[in-house]
Amino acid sequence: MSESARAGAAATTTTADALRRFTRDVFVRAGMSDVDAATVADVLVWADLRGVDSHGVSRISMYLRLIDDGDLNLRPAIKIGTETAASVLVDADRAAGPIAMTMAMGAAVRKARDAGVGLALVRATTHTAALGYYTLMAAQEGMAAIALAASGPFMAYHGTRVAGVSTNPISIAVPGGERGPVVLDMSTGVVARGKLVQARKIGQPIPPGWALDRNGNPTTDPQEALIPLPLGGPKGSGLSLMIELITSLVVSNPIIAGALEGAADGNRHRQNGLALAINLRRFGEPEAFRAEVDRLITALKALPHAAGGGEVLMPGERGSRTLAERTRDGIPLPRAIVEELRGVAARFSVTMFPSAL
Amino acid sequence: MSESARAGAAATTTTADALRRFTRDVFVRAGMSDVDAATVADVLVWADLRGVDSHGVSRISMYLRLIDDGDLNLRPAIKIGTETAASVLVDADRAAGPIAMTMAMGAAVRKARDAGVGLALVRATTHTAALGYYTLMAAQEGMAAIALAASGPFMAYHGTRVAGVSTNPISIAVPGGERGPVVLDMSTGVVARGKLVQARKIGQPIPPGWALDRNGNPTTDPQEALIPLPLGGPKGSGLSLMIELITSLVVSNPIIAGALEGAADGNRHRQNGLALAINLRRFGEPEAFRAEVDRLITALKALPHAAGGGEVLMPGERGSRTLAERTRDGIPLPRAIVEELRGVAARFSVTMFPSAL
Repeated sequence: MSESARAGAAATTTTADALRRFTRDVFVRAGMSDVDAATVADVLVWADLRGVDSHGVSRISMYLRLIDDGDLNLRPAIKIGTETAASVLVDADRAAGPIAMTMAMGAAVRKARDAGVGLALVRATTHTAALGYYTLMAAQEGMAAIALAASGPFMAYHGTRVAGVSTNPISIAVPGGERGPVVLDMSTGVVARGKLVQARKIGQPIPPGWALDRNGNPTTDPQEALIPLPLGGPKGSGLSLMIELITSLVVSNPIIAGALEGAADGNRHRQNGLALAINLRRFGEPEAFRAEVDRLITALKALPHAAGGGEVLMPGERGSRTLAERTRDGIPLPRAIVEELRGVAARFSVTMFPSAL
Repeated sequence: MSESARAGAAATTTTADALRRFTRDVFVRAGMSDVDAATVADVLVWADLRGVDSHGVSRISMYLRLIDDGDLNLRPAIKIGTETAASVLVDADRAAGPIAMTMAMGAAVRKARDAGVGLALVRATTHTAALGYYTLMAAQEGMAAIALAASGPFMAYHGTRVAGVSTNPISIAVPGGERGPVVLDMSTGVVARGKLVQARKIGQPIPPGWALDRNGNPTTDPQEALIPLPLGGPKGSGLSLMIELITSLVVSNPIIAGALEGAADGNRHRQNGLALAINLRRFGEPEAFRAEVDRLITALKALPHAAGGGEVLMPGERGSRTLAERTRDGIPLPRAIVEELRGVAARFSVTMFPSAL
């Protein structure tokens, strides 16, 4: 049973197709091109299918707010700022993250075909959604891939009592064999923000080491928890900082410094990204690679389990299972999200998605 | 005062030059070429200078053991297996890690000059030493860089009670301005193995969450602690696994699977590596980049400190300070290491390095 179904909050179950159609219609009515709206819908609903509910259609209202605020450009003039044999700079003109990031990973994969490696840097996009979508794109083309995204400060920098960096995520994926691809998609925070929100909703104390309160003191009270802490202290905030340096600063669109300095536009929403693809065929035999991935997974799964531990899982395995379940049984949506989307449907005169059950 | 001096274990203080000369002489007598021995000496003593004592001359005896066991090849026939506009595969023929990795990062930097990005994959090297050395090489050429290394299993894979993956490290560096480069060099374990060894030596209990005992049970007893735990559970072991997949499996030299299966040569020492360089000049203005790095560091250092916290440090900052200190005051070496090196000096009829004080 999926996470959200277990929480007993599912008010509606619907199909991925219905949810994609709805999402696309909303963004087309908001002013996006058909193709762009379909891309955004595909990326968001993919996250719902995989159980990453925090990055799915629950983000539609946030995207609409970014449009209303002028931070997300519905008709971006995306330009290629630099192009070499192995790299591109995608100047995204505030395009929705899924549009810029799919374009970037597509370019990285094309460059990697000949050059062995392809790098696409993304300047000035918005919420990049679930990075695993883009690295899996490359894995489906038989490539290994890395994706990074940089955004504004809300996590504590190690040794401080305030938000200093983002929980900047990192995703790495490789193609697999019988057992399918392996895809890691993790934030540099000790815990996903969604888990803090969930604990607050159900009033459950959080473990020490997860968050600080508004005064920068450690707390286990979910109502007081405000600032997530970095994964492993200096390691998590260090990784997050390096992602800002290696994406935002390379593309001349710094995010953190202005926000911390309190610059006039310092808190406007914007993100930068990086997509890297490695062409396995240039360095070895792809079929042998796939067989070795399966062999390694088999060896790890055969290890003796931790006391009280359940199954030994690979990165992305839980998501793949949820995808299979939700493709078959539909996507459960909590009442609050359904109500929110009903409001969106009314605003844009879009037909609400039907409940599948 | 440096970490090891504080521990009161320093028997000798010597200079970096003396230590480099000694290390080079040992490896030349062991059978390495002058140039290769000088590279190994430079990389090891660099770690000592920066306070990463676990990766410095304390490794000489391990390198000699690898030579004796036939795992480290003194006269490797290093070949370039693949070469494209942006990438190379360095087939290292069991060369010492510092030789293969400096060659790889050098190649990545050269490729990145025109191609914007350069990737060097390293097949079949040995202990790669401190990865920050190689990413800083690229930063000194005005490039951003990433380095990864994959080795054999000794850390727990999340959900198991045995060693299943390595603490595979990741390093990222960028050039800086007035404040110098920023260099992250971290393992995917919750704690460096050196800290477990140190706790064992002084008999200090370790925090929960650091390690398992020989039976795979969590322990806080430093004498029982054997298997380090991954950083943040599934995140750390997932990252480590992805490093094995994206280096070892790409270069057709898997390390983990054979070791876990108990293959005849499964536990022989070997490593693989990855070096990636990004040419800042291709995507923006390097001088502006450097100024932005300084601006971001200044903003982070101005944040209010955590309760009871000291200074707010950047990745690599402590190492840079130790480097300045030890360049001025010498490198302190604990008695046990000095005795070990005295044995090495006798074996190879090499003059022992002098004490500077």
